[in-house]
Amino acid sequence: MGKVHAIIPFKLEGAKSRLSNVMSMDEREEFSFKMLQDVLKSLNPLDMKVSILSTSEIELGGYDILISKRRLNDALNEILSEEKEKNLVLILMSDLPLITSKIVERILRRTEDVVIVPGRKGGTNVLFIRDPSRFKVNYYGISFKNHEEIAREGGLSYLIYDSMLAGTDIDEEEDLLDLLIFGEGGARNYLKEIGFFVKIKREKVFLERR
Amino acid sequence: MGKVHAIIPFKLEGAKSRLSNVMSMDEREEFSFKMLQDVLKSLNPLDMKVSILSTSEIELGGYDILISKRRLNDALNEILSEEKEKNLVLILMSDLPLITSKIVERILRRTEDVVIVPGRKGGTNVLFIRDPSRFKVNYYGISFKNHEEIAREGGLSYLIYDSMLAGTDIDEEEDLLDLLIFGEGGARNYLKEIGFFVKIKREKVFLERR
Repeated sequence: MGKVHAIIPFKLEGAKSRLSNVMSMDEREEFSFKMLQDVLKSLNPLDMKVSILSTSEIELGGYDILISKRRLNDALNEILSEEKEKNLVLILMSDLPLITSKIVERILRRTEDVVIVPGRKGGTNVLFIRDPSRFKVNYYGISFKNHEEIAREGGLSYLIYDSMLAGTDIDEEEDLLDLLIFGEGGARNYLKEIGFFVKIKREKVFLERR
Repeated sequence: MGKVHAIIPFKLEGAKSRLSNVMSMDEREEFSFKMLQDVLKSLNPLDMKVSILSTSEIELGGYDILISKRRLNDALNEILSEEKEKNLVLILMSDLPLITSKIVERILRRTEDVVIVPGRKGGTNVLFIRDPSRFKVNYYGISFKNHEEIAREGGLSYLIYDSMLAGTDIDEEEDLLDLLIFGEGGARNYLKEIGFFVKIKREKVFLERR
């Protein structure tokens, strides 16, 4: 197997606007950064090159930071087209604080040309591409179906990988509940630090903040 | 391997009350029934005894219907305590229209004493118990953690099984979006029939009804 190049798109400023009803802007930026660190931690035990594709300068020692102001698809497709021939590419969203090394390993062990891990509402949370010269991304709309279609049209084999943990991207208030319940890392700890907790009332669970 | 006894708790009257903002009572009952049928269909290719544990009489040819007015935990624990010694028990919720035969097969192939498939918000969507005489259920609150604890205290090995498809129980409006996007069976078709559809606006996805 060739070398794996992991690429994590990241946006700090104005991050996670759909959480603005429950978190201040500073909190949302800090929280986004914690989630990114959880994703990076899941990659730590694995031998790969990791690049963060950021819309602005960020401080993160030890990682390759690529700055691009282009739209996500354009920025990623440019990287794919320039990728070294033998490299395998793994694109992970930065808001997947429940992902684990074990899940990433299992994805990398698959033999299909393309592995697509869908997220809630049909997004693509993780994408593993064996030959980047033969694939283009399209992250908008129900993107896991776009990626399925792109693989099919390119004559590539593919797998839709079923995982709740990797499929949980944190976008909205209700997602925070899942992070508190299933999470173990820094993003979950940060939520607890700033006062979020799970309340069980009449045998049902709710998100609350102190 | 002993015979598998699948038990599906089901409630028709007043079903899915949290969907009452988007569906009438008749629709919710019909929809619940369609979801139950999708779950039953996923079990069809597998050799097992299937019982539906219902709070009222229902019409469903070919299945063993157990009527119980008791609370869920009590009703299930009574069944577990009376289960034939060699039987393995598989408890599936009836609102898992995205579950597939393949996923159920994979769960049955696990060798742990107990397999727990968590759902969103920490519920337990599927529970596979090799020795029902050594296990009790507790479905309230963050029940996957209850079941983890019960296994641990009983000295049983267990696995938390990670699946978005089996982990998606349909309770709220936003879950309907996932059913429309990922579903293929009768419950999804019913949603489309009564006018629900996915709208993509500014590259994001929304649930709409005609």
